[in-house]
Amino acid sequence: MSTKPPSGTRDFLPDDIRKRQHVIGVIRDVYEKYGYEPLETPAFENIETLLGKYGEEGNKLIFKILKRGEHEHTGEADLALRYDLTVPLARVVAQYQNELPKFFKRYQIQPVWRADRPAKGRFREFYQCDIDAIGSTSILVEVEQLGAVCEVLQRLGFDDFVVRMNHRRALTAILECAGVPPHLHGEALVALDKLDKIGVEGVEQELRNRGIDAAATTACLQFFSGISREDPRQRGTLERLREFVAGHHAGPPVVDVLDEIVRLSDAGPAHGHLRIDPSLARGLSYYTGAIMEVAVPDLAGSLGGGGRYDNLIGMFLGRDVPACGFSLGLERIIVVMTERNMFPAAVAREAVDILVTVWNDAARSAAVALAGDLRKSGLRVEIYPEPDKLGKQFKYASSRHVPFVAIEGDDERAAGAVAIKDLRSGEQVSVPRADAGRYIAEKSKG
Amino acid sequence: MSTKPPSGTRDFLPDDIRKRQHVIGVIRDVYEKYGYEPLETPAFENIETLLGKYGEEGNKLIFKILKRGEHEHTGEADLALRYDLTVPLARVVAQYQNELPKFFKRYQIQPVWRADRPAKGRFREFYQCDIDAIGSTSILVEVEQLGAVCEVLQRLGFDDFVVRMNHRRALTAILECAGVPPHLHGEALVALDKLDKIGVEGVEQELRNRGIDAAATTACLQFFSGISREDPRQRGTLERLREFVAGHHAGPPVVDVLDEIVRLSDAGPAHGHLRIDPSLARGLSYYTGAIMEVAVPDLAGSLGGGGRYDNLIGMFLGRDVPACGFSLGLERIIVVMTERNMFPAAVAREAVDILVTVWNDAARSAAVALAGDLRKSGLRVEIYPEPDKLGKQFKYASSRHVPFVAIEGDDERAAGAVAIKDLRSGEQVSVPRADAGRYIAEKSKG
Repeated sequence: MSTKPPSGTRDFLPDDIRKRQHVIGVIRDVYEKYGYEPLETPAFENIETLLGKYGEEGNKLIFKILKRGEHEHTGEADLALRYDLTVPLARVVAQYQNELPKFFKRYQIQPVWRADRPAKGRFREFYQCDIDAIGSTSILVEVEQLGAVCEVLQRLGFDDFVVRMNHRRALTAILECAGVPPHLHGEALVALDKLDKIGVEGVEQELRNRGIDAAATTACLQFFSGISREDPRQRGTLERLREFVAGHHAGPPVVDVLDEIVRLSDAGPAHGHLRIDPSLARGLSYYTGAIMEVAVPDLAGSLGGGGRYDNLIGMFLGRDVPACGFSLGLERIIVVMTERNMFPAAVAREAVDILVTVWNDAARSAAVALAGDLRKSGLRVEIYPEPDKLGKQFKYASSRHVPFVAIEGDDERAAGAVAIKDLRSGEQVSVPRADAGRYIAEKSKG
Repeated sequence: MSTKPPSGTRDFLPDDIRKRQHVIGVIRDVYEKYGYEPLETPAFENIETLLGKYGEEGNKLIFKILKRGEHEHTGEADLALRYDLTVPLARVVAQYQNELPKFFKRYQIQPVWRADRPAKGRFREFYQCDIDAIGSTSILVEVEQLGAVCEVLQRLGFDDFVVRMNHRRALTAILECAGVPPHLHGEALVALDKLDKIGVEGVEQELRNRGIDAAATTACLQFFSGISREDPRQRGTLERLREFVAGHHAGPPVVDVLDEIVRLSDAGPAHGHLRIDPSLARGLSYYTGAIMEVAVPDLAGSLGGGGRYDNLIGMFLGRDVPACGFSLGLERIIVVMTERNMFPAAVAREAVDILVTVWNDAARSAAVALAGDLRKSGLRVEIYPEPDKLGKQFKYASSRHVPFVAIEGDDERAAGAVAIKDLRSGEQVSVPRADAGRYIAEKSKG
């Protein structure tokens, strides 16, 4: 029988967990500073809560749970594993509408499961870290979310990330001004999304193939290819956009919205990281307002993304509820941080500060007492469980990267002392027993 | 469509999560101080990993996941939700045997799922908090686990808990010395387990009904009913036990083991909490050595339990691997702590320290800047997202139990000040803008 974890899933050994806990700790801490509150929902939902919410393709990727007991043989499923954190949030908003605050800001950091074909970096079980603000249409919501996400990334040590931003109505205005008929907007965006990958000529071909006429294709490309990637203050891009959509009824107001989000964000951690990108699409169907996506140069794909989606959270209430959210991809953040060696030494370090040795049965009681005292100094202490040769105990400590070993032999005990060996330097000193905790705590810091 | 969570599961709203995070944080912190390292495994396992591991009854309670894609219509299941944390640990020990340390001490805090009939306090999704030490038969393992568990409970604020302890071989020796034939040991223990509930006469009847003869019944009851519940130093119980099993080949050594565990534990946090209880059984099949169970007076059932089980962890390796573990029940700990009002004020407190008000569009930029500065002082800050009447913003803050509100009006801005209103006292003061963060941080502590 195989003892591997199921296809597409992973076991997280201690070193992995320490990294994950570090990143999750920072995300949680920053989100709480922005007034977001924690929420957790069950791993599975009633199957009808999820079916039909993620399109035809999504339905197939949902893990379905068999009915139990006598119904098991029918092959019928009545539960399904959480596929994202947004549909459960919509359910929670409907279920607790009278208990939740008028503006409900929640973060949720939990795994989701998708029966995707496993591939490098694509898992069937992975964590999402979502923030969503429910109940307000104000752009302060977008501004605060951009601030929170940028602060998370900075606290984790990222300085070269870019948050691309666009607006759903800006896209509509651009395409209409270029002469793309509404029913082809989706097609046009799929093509334009590839500008970075296949270049202007490739996109021109693709636009024509997707049924957009020559005039509209030329207008589109003239606009998009003229956008400079190097425009730190965003003035050039915004002005070019303002000019292009000036004649559209929704054009000038939406440019004002983007302008205002950038201006207000400039006072916070998003300063210098925002880039208006009129070609950013992020899937047309879901979003209704601003859309954003975070990227770093050395990762194909994004570290996270989000935007305003005013028609989705109310799905179980039967009415529109304003909402804006951002999702960070824990797995990708960890991949990049690992490749770049960004984890602080304290995260990567050994799991135990000191090993207390035991060489005979009579020494066990003293070892338990010493370990207890060292723990009171805040140290992480392991007792070697079996009376054994000292050499073997040192070797065990080395193999686990435990930096210190404590030996309390008969001589030491008579003198009220403990011998402390630093396995990194080989140095061994005798320390008064009462000072041992402080001594190692100080040495550990250094 | 119902928006309730599925039967037997719960949504955890922010106040719930804060409690859970507090308890989990303490557990994690103490376990790390004892040298336990974190492990996490996938929510589901290949179905053959779990089937047959929990008995006939357990098999029925396992949530099974349908095969995906074209196989879905067959009704066949190939995955199953984690049922406990022990079988996944056994799989991990087999899979990573060459990477794990010789003595592998892990903690694992994750949900498990059981298709039990939901009832008060019985859920289909609940957390287990397990520690297990793999690779050593030394009683220092038991001693350290008892210390760790007692330290967790003390750090959480429990002082009246009792850890009952017994030993699998002590049970065998007692029953054999009483004249209960080996094939009836299971029956006898089921009956004796009810001593507290149905009294001596009830147990006598039950022993006879279960096929134990009159002489053995009398011998059993004489021994068990003579054990005093009030024996803080355990000397009386241990001596009575030693006397009763003196003639059994395994008797004296196992009494020595129990004696030694108590003696060594006396130097640590378990001091005064251990009680030898020769009637403790904890299900015969699983354990091979010491067994323990933690209880508090106001909870029927236990807060957790564990023991030595040397024949289980090696199930995927095909050989015995020594192991000793302890599992704390997060849900029960939270129930008792909530009923006893044991959560520190900092856990129950408001989620946000201060609300920054906004009264017109022109004030938004200053609000974002002020919120950013307050966050730099470590505060949790929410901006009221929409320009609105001040009264409404105060009301919103009150409804969310936010203690402070910041107002930066034209007068304040001209004076370089911020008005801070304490919603609990109604007091409003004007504070230099640069001091606002420190002012509120200090007031929040008080």
